[in-house]
Amino acid sequence: MIVIPGPSSPGLGEKVAEGLGVEVVPVEHRLFPDGESYIRLKGSVRGEEVVIVQTTSPPQDRHLIQLFLLARTAKDYGAEKVVAVVPYLAYARQDKRFLEGEALSIDVVIRLIEASGVDALLTLDIHSPDVLERFTIPVKSLSAIPLIAEHLKAKGFEGAFSLSPDKGAIELAKMGDAVLGGGYDALEKARDRHTGEVRTREKRLPVEGRDVIIFDDMISTGGTMALAVGLAKKCGARRVVAACTHPLLVGRAVERILEAGADEIVGTDSVPGPHSVVSVAPLIVEGLSDLL
Amino acid sequence: MIVIPGPSSPGLGEKVAEGLGVEVVPVEHRLFPDGESYIRLKGSVRGEEVVIVQTTSPPQDRHLIQLFLLARTAKDYGAEKVVAVVPYLAYARQDKRFLEGEALSIDVVIRLIEASGVDALLTLDIHSPDVLERFTIPVKSLSAIPLIAEHLKAKGFEGAFSLSPDKGAIELAKMGDAVLGGGYDALEKARDRHTGEVRTREKRLPVEGRDVIIFDDMISTGGTMALAVGLAKKCGARRVVAACTHPLLVGRAVERILEAGADEIVGTDSVPGPHSVVSVAPLIVEGLSDLL
Repeated sequence: MIVIPGPSSPGLGEKVAEGLGVEVVPVEHRLFPDGESYIRLKGSVRGEEVVIVQTTSPPQDRHLIQLFLLARTAKDYGAEKVVAVVPYLAYARQDKRFLEGEALSIDVVIRLIEASGVDALLTLDIHSPDVLERFTIPVKSLSAIPLIAEHLKAKGFEGAFSLSPDKGAIELAKMGDAVLGGGYDALEKARDRHTGEVRTREKRLPVEGRDVIIFDDMISTGGTMALAVGLAKKCGARRVVAACTHPLLVGRAVERILEAGADEIVGTDSVPGPHSVVSVAPLIVEGLSDLL
Repeated sequence: MIVIPGPSSPGLGEKVAEGLGVEVVPVEHRLFPDGESYIRLKGSVRGEEVVIVQTTSPPQDRHLIQLFLLARTAKDYGAEKVVAVVPYLAYARQDKRFLEGEALSIDVVIRLIEASGVDALLTLDIHSPDVLERFTIPVKSLSAIPLIAEHLKAKGFEGAFSLSPDKGAIELAKMGDAVLGGGYDALEKARDRHTGEVRTREKRLPVEGRDVIIFDDMISTGGTMALAVGLAKKCGARRVVAACTHPLLVGRAVERILEAGADEIVGTDSVPGPHSVVSVAPLIVEGLSDLL
């Protein structure tokens, strides 16, 4: 087995290889002046089970095309099997049609991943688990929430209250609570289909003078998270941590969350960045054992 | 038959529909704050032959993903046949492996186009015609050079000398000459595989006091074109026009070409922009008749 660390996940790819105790095939990558990606595998993959680690965080389309180029090139050069580790799967939120004529974008992305030669896929905290059933190849989504909770526990947050900003994500708060042991709950949120505006229903939370960890799968513009932080503070929370697996943190997300009263933003290296303090490498190493 | 003008070619799509005398199904398109494309077809395509007009100029990866979303969505909603009109086909220059391990990127793009539900493809002045043979669906590349030459003839360039900056593109100069009638030739260029540096062999051209049109399939950073312009000026050319089908014109391309002595840059709406003065709509309308 060998690992190919893709251009979007070079550090994580190296860590996964280390955790598996296998060699890396480095990728030579550059962008041409017009913006096209150039990809070259700098080592042999012939007859190997190949693990490509390539997240598809922004710029999503570029990272997707690079994933397709890597998978097909590995197959061209004789890889026996290609397993794609895509910690953050782009377009996973476009999984339903709300209006006639809308693209079911995640289904298109799934077909393209399969067409590019990927034989199995591992992802993390996928937004809607039912998306997994639309793959024809073996696929698995693992949760990084226990790892994040362990990290926070070690930093003095044992006994904190676990909160998810949305009913759909209550499982995340539950997983956080299994580590932190301070109880859990979920807020209810309503998103306007046309304007995209998010509202959170007011709720009394038993967090007066206590620490609160808000767990979500991802933070994009930070609107949802900022509302949850604000509500926790309003209910008297002491320290509030905004935690997620995929810290996309686009635009003013960090500022919005901190302005709402959060003390800290904690994410994983699913999406590399200044807040990606927890590594998902151990989780991926463990998860690969079933897929391979 | 109906036409879908894609987000990268809205104006050209409208013109093609007008030329064909058929209805347009408009596309609602926006980018989410994180950079994902949202695509919605605002009309019925059921049972129709659908022509999607979507060039894949920079940002290539975004425009490719949008093409895949459009094609699959048209199929999802019952399109009988999907013809993709992709005037500029991204990654077409990555058609050979120079070094072990390189991605054969155009082959990957072709597979993805086919996997997304495209049944036939029309493109213009593809960089290497042998790329066409790698499709399994019907495909055709037409040349916009005669249209560009007619445009220049009407602007007073009859009798100008036609030049291509590269031996591989001599057919373009020949096509220009067929309209302008002032003779033609090609320069020889050598590109260093590793540094990408381009040199043009010195050559005496019979252009003293005459107008010269340099025809190429595309202008990217303008390096090749600027060298050809400079050589034409050195040989005593009067006016020099830098003409191409695909005016990508990335970075300082325009400045480089004008600084080398060109009087004008003429491209087509294959790639929309300030120099896209010739419309390829009539060519596409004509070309579609064979594919449909």
